[in-house]
Amino acid sequence: MSCLNDLWSERKKAAIKIRAKILDAARSWFKKHGFIEVQGPVIIPAMGDRPNSLEVEYFDGKAYLTQGLQPYAEVFMANLGRIYTIAPVFRVEKIRTNRHLTEYWRIETEIPHCNLNGLTKIQEQLVSYICQRLSEEAEEELEAVQRDVKKLKKIKAPFPRLTYDNAIGMLQKDGFDIQWGSILDWEHEKHLSLQFGQPFFISEFPVGIETFFFQFNPKKPELTMSVDLFAPEGYGEISTGGQPTIEKEELSRKMKEEKMSPDEQRWYMDLKEMGSIPYSGFAIGVERLTQWICKLEHVKEASAFPRFMDNIYP
Amino acid sequence: MSCLNDLWSERKKAAIKIRAKILDAARSWFKKHGFIEVQGPVIIPAMGDRPNSLEVEYFDGKAYLTQGLQPYAEVFMANLGRIYTIAPVFRVEKIRTNRHLTEYWRIETEIPHCNLNGLTKIQEQLVSYICQRLSEEAEEELEAVQRDVKKLKKIKAPFPRLTYDNAIGMLQKDGFDIQWGSILDWEHEKHLSLQFGQPFFISEFPVGIETFFFQFNPKKPELTMSVDLFAPEGYGEISTGGQPTIEKEELSRKMKEEKMSPDEQRWYMDLKEMGSIPYSGFAIGVERLTQWICKLEHVKEASAFPRFMDNIYP
Repeated sequence: MSCLNDLWSERKKAAIKIRAKILDAARSWFKKHGFIEVQGPVIIPAMGDRPNSLEVEYFDGKAYLTQGLQPYAEVFMANLGRIYTIAPVFRVEKIRTNRHLTEYWRIETEIPHCNLNGLTKIQEQLVSYICQRLSEEAEEELEAVQRDVKKLKKIKAPFPRLTYDNAIGMLQKDGFDIQWGSILDWEHEKHLSLQFGQPFFISEFPVGIETFFFQFNPKKPELTMSVDLFAPEGYGEISTGGQPTIEKEELSRKMKEEKMSPDEQRWYMDLKEMGSIPYSGFAIGVERLTQWICKLEHVKEASAFPRFMDNIYP
Repeated sequence: MSCLNDLWSERKKAAIKIRAKILDAARSWFKKHGFIEVQGPVIIPAMGDRPNSLEVEYFDGKAYLTQGLQPYAEVFMANLGRIYTIAPVFRVEKIRTNRHLTEYWRIETEIPHCNLNGLTKIQEQLVSYICQRLSEEAEEELEAVQRDVKKLKKIKAPFPRLTYDNAIGMLQKDGFDIQWGSILDWEHEKHLSLQFGQPFFISEFPVGIETFFFQFNPKKPELTMSVDLFAPEGYGEISTGGQPTIEKEELSRKMKEEKMSPDEQRWYMDLKEMGSIPYSGFAIGVERLTQWICKLEHVKEASAFPRFMDNIYP
């Protein structure tokens, strides 16, 4: 009882303070650029199968915990314009890694009438701004986590841009046995990430390895209009995003392919009816961004009370 | 598909924008006064009975959805000082009212070495600041919800302060058949609320009708060190708070009275060990604050996709 303040290490205190400053900087950026903050529902209806979703007992039925603002994001966007949320999401992760949590927060945004190129620009401006603000306003905390402030100060848009094709080419050239069409595993992510001093984008993942709701590239229908942001210095993916399908027939076909239940298809289409204008969006993992910025070994260090498989205490 | 922007009424759009501006103003106030933003866990362990909690399937066991930052708040506070969170909480409400949601957001804060009087001052400053900022920065939206901006501009600390004893006296004088020791029902709240043009506090509720974790008043042990904030104009309670017990034996006795399981008692005490310094805190319901500020009939209008009993769609 005598040394309560010693309970968390100085490093942990600093990481949690940096997390707060990251969120503050992100909100400032969104505010300055005319984005409206919203909160979507955490509890969402149970209809089709929702693999990796946590189930909730909801009065006499069941429901699930959200994995992101979709499809509600589109309704917000159609009614309010540029929107963002900073909110918790949930995902059953049955693997042990230093990169996954069951409960984590996301900085998620949707931008009407924005294509993949526009989305990339917005994202790099946001992330640069966060890094610049931190290098100015969190020097003490950054020192406590032994992050080189000078390196953070150098994080500036524009960030390098690779396509998935480029990334596979780089990996093959460096001796990795990876075929076009494969998912990037952690070893691939890490290898690419170590080549860069700046965050970098990888875009246009093949159909089948990215969210099925993204549009096809009209010129190369084997590619999706998707773009992920990767942290440098060996930290890997920190965001995912893209330009979703809004064409009704294509969406219908995709939903059938994914074996969504008829109820869920109808519900999803009803929501879509409220907000189907061309748009794109991305979601940054708050703990992953904090992990990279603080150079933490495990993503759980970016959360005060992390939840992961087999761990729900304290 | 042709008139998507007409889907939400102008009133609804304005209410959701005002909600965003309330949160922005609250965060500015906290930042200006040295509070650090934190996020506690949403999924919490299942040990004792948690009446009114929603149950989650967590891997092979079960867990619950949080009802607030306690007891984690104390750990944050002991390590970081003044802290706050703006986050979702969950509560099974088996009644139909225009004041309850199953899922809602709270502005919650804990302040080390702060007594009931200090807590009241902090809260009235925060709420005044929010109202002032809105009257300056949300004129257009306030007009759209038909809120008289002039009235909002007049909301200024200090707010009137009643004790529970005063409140019962007022109600009896006005002809209500209410005995000392009873809970204030909605009709009582509403009646009191209509007497005021400013938000007002009611403090020192009797033991038994407020959270059992609050300290007793040392001079009148039948009263708790609790204080709730009520909105004027007929809107009723918008926050709850107080000065919790930190004395170990008293806490132990209270936990036994509440029939917490031995596991839960141990877990709670362990957490307490990480953070037992004198403190107080309060939590404002975001939707209730928005309801009053926008003069909405139902609290659900302050949420874009409200969840309540029998409703989880869309």
